[in-house]
Order: sequence, then structure tokens, then C-alpha cells
Amino acid sequence: MNYPSRLIEDAVNEISRLPGIGKKTALRLALHLLKREEEQTRSLSEAIVNMRTKTTYCVKCHNIADEMYCNICANPKRDRTTICVVVDTRDVLAIESTNQYKGLYHVLGGIISPLEGIGPADLNIDSLVNRVEKPAEEEGVQEIILALSPTMEGDTTAFYLQKKLKSTGVKMSTIARGVPIGGDLEYADEITLGRSIISRVAYD
Amino acid sequence: MNYPSRLIEDAVNEISRLPGIGKKTALRLALHLLKREEEQTRSLSEAIVNMRTKTTYCVKCHNIADEMYCNICANPKRDRTTICVVVDTRDVLAIESTNQYKGLYHVLGGIISPLEGIGPADLNIDSLVNRVEKPAEEEGVQEIILALSPTMEGDTTAFYLQKKLKSTGVKMSTIARGVPIGGDLEYADEITLGRSIISRVAYD
Repeated sequence: MNYPSRLIEDAVNEISRLPGIGKKTALRLALHLLKREEEQTRSLSEAIVNMRTKTTYCVKCHNIADEMYCNICANPKRDRTTICVVVDTRDVLAIESTNQYKGLYHVLGGIISPLEGIGPADLNIDSLVNRVEKPAEEEGVQEIILALSPTMEGDTTAFYLQKKLKSTGVKMSTIARGVPIGGDLEYADEITLGRSIISRVAYD
Repeated sequence: MNYPSRLIEDAVNEISRLPGIGKKTALRLALHLLKREEEQTRSLSEAIVNMRTKTTYCVKCHNIADEMYCNICANPKRDRTTICVVVDTRDVLAIESTNQYKGLYHVLGGIISPLEGIGPADLNIDSLVNRVEKPAEEEGVQEIILALSPTMEGDTTAFYLQKKLKSTGVKMSTIARGVPIGGDLEYADEITLGRSIISRVAYD
């Protein structure tokens, strides 16, 4: 495209490097910023640089943190005997928003994917084993909940973690897979429906 | 949402002020930047601030420009007798990408919309009348092409411009409305199809 200004072109090129944003959307965003107060662009620019340069990762669970420990690990009210293993911070936020989990987390930072060249060594797995084997402070981990996506990569990672943690004797579980709440049986795919029959839950 | 870090929260809030970007997408973009090199965030940040603070508008056509005149007005090869009137820079880019127009432009900077409180005085209309009435330099405008969207606002603006420019005696036209090229007649809406019959073009 023949941009009217080199400055716009530079901005469009930079914005369109973000995931899911093409050149047309980038141009729309750039023109939007041009129409708004200069202050808005400055504060956007500062917020992303501050975030990038000052954010750190929790030394315990690898979640994003402002300080050494994340809000969750630093919270004395959380149940320290349970660790929920997730892929990234978005999963932590999703589970936190359910208000159903009061334990700690462990962020793997990715998922085992031979196709993308991501192996167990690229993930925060050793530190998870360490947390179970050599519990620091008041931690005495009794259960590991795997909250991984029900995909091939998720299943592979879950299988690897089970093998790796077997010797520690810690109790392990996975989040339930089945028909979504509010979902119509008729529209559930056959694999999900099949699994939900196999994993049926007995009434007490 | 309960963000893991205040820095992330600030960045998400700033990013989600952009049009069409909600909190979830903003979080995805923020986490993406966190995973990439610090340099990428810095150059994104610099590009948008540079664009916002250094971009100006062409004194002749109000298109975005790096200098006093935009690339198009400054180009001596463009036909200076024809002005195409558009709403914003995106329209200029869209028309330029067709390679079918060699004249100049005039960017209104908006469209008459009583609902949004935008009247003729808020748009670059006086300067358009000036360009026709008192042609500067080598300009001798002979035709004004209105390239406005076929909406109520577009039609209102076109009607206003026709009245405003009538006394100058300049030739005025509008871009053709009809069935899109490659479109199937069956799927054209009835208003477009109706107009395309009324505005039929005779074979020579």
C-alpha cells in the first residue's frame, strides 16, 4: 500500500506485528490515535514499555508478578497444599474468575509440541517437581490438578507430567471434561459426548 | 478481572481504549509483548509516539502528510484539474490502490451527521470551496468527484456540497453505485439492484 506518510507507514508496520492485527486494522488504529489527544498515545506508549521492562515472573509459580512473588503466592489465605498446573497467565485469570479455586498455581509457560519444537526442557517442569519434592516454607503439596487444554499437546504434556511426578506419590487429577453447562446435548460433538459418558459421575 | 500485576492492568486498560479491542484481546496483546524481545515493544512505542507527534496535515487537501504538502499534492504528475472528495485518509488509500485515479484529493475529515452532532462547519468544506473559487498556483479545477459512502450521512453531505459548489459552475459527479464486480445478481440487495437499473449505462 502507498501510505501518505512514512511515519504512518512505520507505525502501521509496528502495530501489524501484533498477533491477529493485519495492515488494515493497524491503519485503522493508527488513524484513530491521530484523531485523539496526543496524551492518549503517550500514555499507551508508556504503559506498554513500563509493562515490558518492569514486569517480572513469580520465582515460585512463574506467573506474572510486580515483585518477587505473584499476588497469589504472596496471599497467606490461599491453600498451599494444592497446585493447579496451567499453560500461561491467561489460564490463571480464567480459573481465578470462576472463584472456585483457592489453591496455588504453576505456570508451565507453554505446552509440549514436537511440531513447534517445544520439548519438556523448554517448560517450567523441573521447578514444579522441586515444589513437590522439596517443599519450601510452609508448603506441603498434597494434590496437583492439571488444567490443560483437551488437545493432543495438552494430553501429551499431561502424560509427561504424570510420569515425571509419579515417584513423588503426590495425588494427581485433571479438570473434568464433558458437556458444557448450558450446552444442548444435541449440539455437543461426539468425542466430548462420548467422554462425558465414560467419565460419568455417580450420584451420592 | 483480577490482574496478576498492576503494570499489566495499566497496559491492558490503555490498549483496550483502541477501537474494536476489548479487555480480552488487550490482555492477549500485552502477554504477546511480554514474550517478545523488549526491543519490539520499544520500537512499537516509539513508532506510535513519533507518528502522533510529528505527522501533520497537507495544507491543500488535508490528507496526512510528513511535510507541508502530502505526497499526492506534491507530485507534479498528478492531474490538478480534478479533485476527488473523500471522508478520510483511508478512502484516499483505497482509491489509490485501484490505480484508476490520477487527480488530486480533498479530505473532509468526517461526514455530516446530525445524530453525532457533526455539521458542515466541522468539516474541511470552506477550503474545498476556496480551491475551486480561487485556484492557487497552476490549479484550474474543472471537476469535483464525490466519493462518499452510499449512506444517509454520505448522501446528506453530497447534497450539501452540491448546493455549496453550484455557484462556482464546476462540473460535479459521484462515483457509480451498482452491482459489485464479481457479485452474483441473485445475492445483490434490492436497493443496490434497483439503483443499478435506474443508473444503467448505455453501450456506445
